[in-house]
Amino acid sequence: MSTPIPPEILQLRASIDNIDGALTYLLAERFKITRRVGQLKAALGLPPADPERDRAQIARMKEIALTAGLDPDFAEQFREFIVAEVIRHHKLIAAQLGAQAPVLDTYS
Amino acid sequence: MSTPIPPEILQLRASIDNIDGALTYLLAERFKITRRVGQLKAALGLPPADPERDRAQIARMKEIALTAGLDPDFAEQFREFIVAEVIRHHKLIAAQLGAQAPVLDTYS
Repeated sequence: MSTPIPPEILQLRASIDNIDGALTYLLAERFKITRRVGQLKAALGLPPADPERDRAQIARMKEIALTAGLDPDFAEQFREFIVAEVIRHHKLIAAQLGAQAPVLDTYS
Repeated sequence: MSTPIPPEILQLRASIDNIDGALTYLLAERFKITRRVGQLKAALGLPPADPERDRAQIARMKEIALTAGLDPDFAEQFREFIVAEVIRHHKLIAAQLGAQAPVLDTYS
């Protein structure tokens, strides 16, 4: 039923799997750090959102993307995707704390 | 106007920036590989989609996510996000080749 997969494709798939493993571990670590930032900001009464930091991060990621040969617009979309998850985490934390205020969130 | 940012948050931000750099470089490399896979499959007349491989990848990423302390459902969403970009690349390649057939795509 299934077509045999040529060895070169199998090798490339193994590299994709390795990269996916690395990406997954890095994302896990990143969310650990943003959780800690969220806790610190809440404890210190700092505003969750920081538009200046956001702009700097977007510019930096687009620059790295260009260096790496990645579409800079995709890099920005990727950041937005991650930020959406950070916001979800912070809302969960706020709900656990019984916070009533709307949660504006931050990437970091 | 801006609130001073405590040193601990600045340190955490620097770690986030390092992780984002690593993520960006890895993503660039991953797309280089999927482009090559797409070219090979097209050259060899292999079908672009491989549902069995998809299922194996999803299961593997969710397992790694659990090990790493990352929400497995988020890991799956992340994969879908990347796959959408792979599909976009392959459509662009097909358009450049003047292909008329609809492009079913593959993660790898």
